[in-house]
Amino acid sequence: MSEHIVSSFDTELRQLRNMIAEMGGYAEKSVVDSVDALIKRDITLAQRVIALDGAIDALQRNVEERAILVIAKRQPMALDLREIVSAIRVSNDLERIGDLGKNIAKRVVALNGQMQPGKIFGGFDHMAEMVLEQLKQVLDAFAKRDVEEALAVWRSDGAIDAMYTSLFRELLTYMMEDPRNIGFCTHLLFCAKNIERIGDHATNIAETVHYLVTGQSPSGERPKNDTTSTTAVEYPAPAAE
Amino acid sequence: MSEHIVSSFDTELRQLRNMIAEMGGYAEKSVVDSVDALIKRDITLAQRVIALDGAIDALQRNVEERAILVIAKRQPMALDLREIVSAIRVSNDLERIGDLGKNIAKRVVALNGQMQPGKIFGGFDHMAEMVLEQLKQVLDAFAKRDVEEALAVWRSDGAIDAMYTSLFRELLTYMMEDPRNIGFCTHLLFCAKNIERIGDHATNIAETVHYLVTGQSPSGERPKNDTTSTTAVEYPAPAAE
Repeated sequence: MSEHIVSSFDTELRQLRNMIAEMGGYAEKSVVDSVDALIKRDITLAQRVIALDGAIDALQRNVEERAILVIAKRQPMALDLREIVSAIRVSNDLERIGDLGKNIAKRVVALNGQMQPGKIFGGFDHMAEMVLEQLKQVLDAFAKRDVEEALAVWRSDGAIDAMYTSLFRELLTYMMEDPRNIGFCTHLLFCAKNIERIGDHATNIAETVHYLVTGQSPSGERPKNDTTSTTAVEYPAPAAE
Repeated sequence: MSEHIVSSFDTELRQLRNMIAEMGGYAEKSVVDSVDALIKRDITLAQRVIALDGAIDALQRNVEERAILVIAKRQPMALDLREIVSAIRVSNDLERIGDLGKNIAKRVVALNGQMQPGKIFGGFDHMAEMVLEQLKQVLDAFAKRDVEEALAVWRSDGAIDAMYTSLFRELLTYMMEDPRNIGFCTHLLFCAKNIERIGDHATNIAETVHYLVTGQSPSGERPKNDTTSTTAVEYPAPAAE
C-alpha cells in the first residue's frame, strides 16, 4: 500500500472518530438538557432537545454510510476493521440515546401545567447525574481505547439499575397515595425507564470498546439490578368498601 | 470477476438472506408467544420466550460479522452493497423486537398471582394481532424486494399508534378507579409500549426495503398517531377530602 493511500485511510478513520465525538457531545447534551428541562419544567429547553434529535439521526446515517464505504474501498483487516465496525455500533447507541432524551423532552412538554411533587425530582437528578457520568466516561474510554475504563463503566451499570428500581417503587407509591398523581407519575415512570436505558447504551458502548481493543466481548454476565420487570409490585391493602 | 467468484458471492448473499429469514421467524414467535403468555398468564410460555432471545441475539451478531466480511472481501457496489447494508439494518430491528418480546415475557412472570381484569386484554390481543400482521407483511416485502408492500406497512403504523394511545388511556382509567390496579397496570403500560415499539421496528424495516430497492428513504413525514408522550393525561376531579 502506498503511503498516500495509508494516509488517506488514516484521514478517513480520523473523520469517523471526529463524527463519533461530535455525536457523543450531542448525546450528552440531550441527556443533560432533557433531565434539566424535566426537573425545572422548562418547556423551551425541552423543545430545543426535541429539535436536536434530527442532527444526531443525520450524523448516525452519515457514520454508517462512510464506514461502509471505507470497508468496501480499503478492505481493512483486524484492528482497522474492528475500528470501523465499532464506529457503526457506537453511533447506533448514541442515536438511541438521542431518541430517549427526545422522548423525555416530549413528556416534559406533556407535563406542562400538571402538579408535581418537587421531592420526586431529587431521585431523577441523582440517577441522571450517574448515567451522564457513565456516558462521559465511556466516550472517553472509546476515544482513548482504554479497556479498563470501559470495564469500570460496564461493571457499574448495576448501580443505575438499582436506582431505577427504587425510583420506580417511589413513583408507584405516589400513584397509590392519590389517584390525581397517576397521570404525571406515569410520564415520570417512562422518563425514569428512559434514563435507565441510556445507562444500558453506555454499557453497550463499554462492550464495544472491549471488542475494539481485544477483539472479544467482555466475559461474564452483564451486571443487572433492574428488577422492575421481574418482581411483582406490592400494593396497599384494599381500602374498606 | 470470474463466475466462480460471482457464484460464491451469490451464495454469501443467500446465506445472509436465510439468516434474516430465520431471525424473522424467531422475532414473530417472540411477539406471538409473549402476547399469548400475557393474555393467558402462561408463565411457562413466558419463560420459553425469555430463553429464545439468546438465539436471536447470536444470529444478529452473526449477520453483522458475516455482512462486514462480505463487504471487505467483495467490495460490492450499488445494489449489492445496499443488500448487505440492509441485512445489517434489518437484523438490528429484529434483535430489538426480540428484546421487546423478552421484556413482555419478563413482566408476565412478574404479574403472576396478581388480579387482572380480563377485559383489558382484548385491547392487547387486537393491537398485537395488528403489529404481528405488519411484521409478517414487512418481512415478506423484504424477501420479495416489494416496495409497494413495504410502503403499505409504513403508512399503517399510525393505526397501531392510535390503538396504543387508546389502550394507554384505558389502563390509566383502571389505575384511577382503584389503586389496587396500579401495580399490574403499570406492567401492562410497559407491555403496551413494547408492542407499539415493535410496530416502529416493522416501520423501520419498511424504510430499509425502500432504501434497498430505490437507494433512498421514503419521502414525507413518517405517520405518527402516538400522542401519549405529547399530550397531558386527564385525571378525575379530586375526591372530597
